[in-house]
Amino acid sequence: MSDRGVTPMEQDYAAWYTDIVLQAELADYAPVRGCMVIRPYGYALWEAIKDELDRRIKSCGVGGRYHQNAYFPLFIPQSLLQKEAEHVEGFAPECAVVTYGGGKKLEEPLYVRPTSETIMYKMFAKWIQSWRDLPLLLNQWANIVRWELRTRLFLRTLEFLWQEGHTAHATHEEALKECLMILNDVYKDFVENHLAIPVLSGRKSEGQKFAGAVTTYTLEALMQDGRALQMGTSHDLGQNFAHAFGVRFQDKDGNLRYVWQTSWGVSTRLIGAVIMAHSDNKGLVLPPRIAPVKCVIIPIYKSDEKEKVLSAAHKLHSALAERFGQSAVVLDDRDQFKPGWKFAEWELRGVPLRVEIGPRDIEASQFVLVRRDDPSKLKFPQSALTQTVEHHLNAMQNALYERAKRFLNSKTSSADDIHTLGEIVDSQGGFVFAPWCGSVQCENTVQEQTKATVRCIPFDAKEPSPDTKCIACGKPAKWIVPFAKAY
Amino acid sequence: MSDRGVTPMEQDYAAWYTDIVLQAELADYAPVRGCMVIRPYGYALWEAIKDELDRRIKSCGVGGRYHQNAYFPLFIPQSLLQKEAEHVEGFAPECAVVTYGGGKKLEEPLYVRPTSETIMYKMFAKWIQSWRDLPLLLNQWANIVRWELRTRLFLRTLEFLWQEGHTAHATHEEALKECLMILNDVYKDFVENHLAIPVLSGRKSEGQKFAGAVTTYTLEALMQDGRALQMGTSHDLGQNFAHAFGVRFQDKDGNLRYVWQTSWGVSTRLIGAVIMAHSDNKGLVLPPRIAPVKCVIIPIYKSDEKEKVLSAAHKLHSALAERFGQSAVVLDDRDQFKPGWKFAEWELRGVPLRVEIGPRDIEASQFVLVRRDDPSKLKFPQSALTQTVEHHLNAMQNALYERAKRFLNSKTSSADDIHTLGEIVDSQGGFVFAPWCGSVQCENTVQEQTKATVRCIPFDAKEPSPDTKCIACGKPAKWIVPFAKAY
Repeated sequence: MSDRGVTPMEQDYAAWYTDIVLQAELADYAPVRGCMVIRPYGYALWEAIKDELDRRIKSCGVGGRYHQNAYFPLFIPQSLLQKEAEHVEGFAPECAVVTYGGGKKLEEPLYVRPTSETIMYKMFAKWIQSWRDLPLLLNQWANIVRWELRTRLFLRTLEFLWQEGHTAHATHEEALKECLMILNDVYKDFVENHLAIPVLSGRKSEGQKFAGAVTTYTLEALMQDGRALQMGTSHDLGQNFAHAFGVRFQDKDGNLRYVWQTSWGVSTRLIGAVIMAHSDNKGLVLPPRIAPVKCVIIPIYKSDEKEKVLSAAHKLHSALAERFGQSAVVLDDRDQFKPGWKFAEWELRGVPLRVEIGPRDIEASQFVLVRRDDPSKLKFPQSALTQTVEHHLNAMQNALYERAKRFLNSKTSSADDIHTLGEIVDSQGGFVFAPWCGSVQCENTVQEQTKATVRCIPFDAKEPSPDTKCIACGKPAKWIVPFAKAY
Repeated sequence: MSDRGVTPMEQDYAAWYTDIVLQAELADYAPVRGCMVIRPYGYALWEAIKDELDRRIKSCGVGGRYHQNAYFPLFIPQSLLQKEAEHVEGFAPECAVVTYGGGKKLEEPLYVRPTSETIMYKMFAKWIQSWRDLPLLLNQWANIVRWELRTRLFLRTLEFLWQEGHTAHATHEEALKECLMILNDVYKDFVENHLAIPVLSGRKSEGQKFAGAVTTYTLEALMQDGRALQMGTSHDLGQNFAHAFGVRFQDKDGNLRYVWQTSWGVSTRLIGAVIMAHSDNKGLVLPPRIAPVKCVIIPIYKSDEKEKVLSAAHKLHSALAERFGQSAVVLDDRDQFKPGWKFAEWELRGVPLRVEIGPRDIEASQFVLVRRDDPSKLKFPQSALTQTVEHHLNAMQNALYERAKRFLNSKTSSADDIHTLGEIVDSQGGFVFAPWCGSVQCENTVQEQTKATVRCIPFDAKEPSPDTKCIACGKPAKWIVPFAKAY
């Protein structure tokens, strides 16, 4: 256990975040610049996210097929990365490059994958011959390297873990269906129902889209400091890569056609989002559905009552472990720490529920329950143990989402001119909806003057009235879009 | 589906192996030298292996604790890799080295991890302070790069996937217990009961041990060409790395002591072992417990019976899918292929059981069952469908192990002189037990003259009689050990 004392978020939000990551033992700084070590507690959180997403990805698809996992090489030869012009321009500058192997200088440098479009689509061109080979629906869980200069644990690290889906289709219609199914039915549903984080969804502006995509779709969440965080993206790649890599198929009429492609991904950044969306000054707060430990039991006793209380605590533990899984329930029977110290320890680690049991509870056949998001001490009969715990896990899951939703709403505002937008962004942050003409130039102007960017063009974006003016150039506005400062 | 026609193993064992890997679509050559793409069917096999091993690793431990997963960086700074002398000597020459990042030459080159002792133990030194922090029992699932010159799909590739366990203990006794528990209770049990491959176990000779270890323990299996394959290793690292990285703890009496460490791993090489241990000239043969598809249903009909037969086949599929899982049972209702073609296709892919159903079977309320390891067509009443399939999955699992065990025994022999050993190794291969004095020099002599190496010093190695002579030097033998040509 590390020294405790989380910097209050009102005092220094960045320090508060880092304190939680380090003190809750989610991750640590590695002895390589910009890299992190994901510690067991943080990795268990990633496994909870990964397992549920993997299940969801494998159980859906299009064209009568399901997604399947595969694994492609870490290294991408320079010549391959260069095949799609926009893509290499976007990614090559932030790559790590291997120039020596087995003690010899390589003839061709190898790029450590910053994303896997190029290495995968080279294989797609080999595997896809006929319409019968489509759709091809692949997903990969892998490590990714991007040479970031300013890094922050989980949010932006030189190496991170992610999943990347890559699909090929016979028609643009099917590709688009895939792309939006992943964004809405997989990512958005998971983020809202498991991570308890409400999001805005829509497409990225031209200036913010993925290098090589026709359209990038995105989910945008709001952190407690009022800054936006991109949670996941799904790209309609059109036929850009298909042309670059010659990915073609013979259709039912015998014609050679280029495939339509998508790619999509979410990463360990989601852990950063969970921390920043829900936690407080006592430490981490985890949504019950993804919490590695869902409930901790703290026995409370003086030395002469120890045996009796521990025995009762073990009974509660057995019942809960049977219902929720062995690793999901912890009985903290350590003798060297006092109950109050243990309360603080497990609050710091974000465990959703705490069960306390002492001699008087045993006499009354009851237990005390405390939710991580509410300090009230509630008493329940022991006979209702598992139902009570289950009920409050669900109740807390919903309460976290509702609280985050209220926060999002309270930080959503609008502005009709760039000056007002700048003031709101500086004072309260959040999403500020404002009219925009749609040009990259105006997006840049707003960013230079206010540090806010267009987070997305929402699917349900309001059509502005004809006399509505772009806040940057004053010409007619095309959309009303949410601007925000972002991570 | 690729062109079929597996080279007979008697004709060219290496071509037979590669044909199976490529044609069963387990893996493909990547557009990077020495690397492979693990295709969905091969990756599903890896997931079956990984899921079961992960469950086993997490559910055991020593000192009252269980193993936990974590994740450490891909890149190791040169200075860190150099801290343990033997280790750097063993691994540095086969590393891939990153010298550029973000467009700039790096001040210190980064090695792509060939194994993670150094980067992990630097963190262990930070995390471990007191005896209360011990034992530390970590495991990592990761990709590894070793610059191999002669590569072969799954068996030896430039990049591969593995798990690596790394633990630290207060005593050598506990570390040794951990090291052998992993070898025997986790690896050996898994390899024999899930992969159906019998193994010899013991410790490696001085010349073959892991760079930096005090003792390396190993499992050695025999492939159908008579060559041995190392299946997994578990290393007693003693205090070598603890001294190099300063991993110390304060014991209960307040004294600073160095920890005792272990590391252990198995890799995607296990897939190569499964292929080479069980498959035949029709293609892959998979042990039922790790087969991604356990049963395929082939409907057999003429055009006017199609509807009736497909309806019956769907009923069988529902019942089996409910019992064994949706993805474990496939109904091959493709119209464009004849039943015979489908039989060959699913045999090539190693699916353990085939269920056939045609009009006459429907009338007789029966189905036909064919096991991948036995061409007999067996008939059973449909009312006994799930029990029959379950019974034959278990029976085939046991039969594969027994067959492999008989093969191992039939290829186990002994020799009293180097000439006889060389003749046996050349003619029938297998494990040839011979007396050895224990010196590295004599092991090298035998390897130069016969290409065979000491696979292990078995735990149950026979004490030779005092007049038994080493086959290389003629001095008194220390052990009778199995020599073999190995992958």
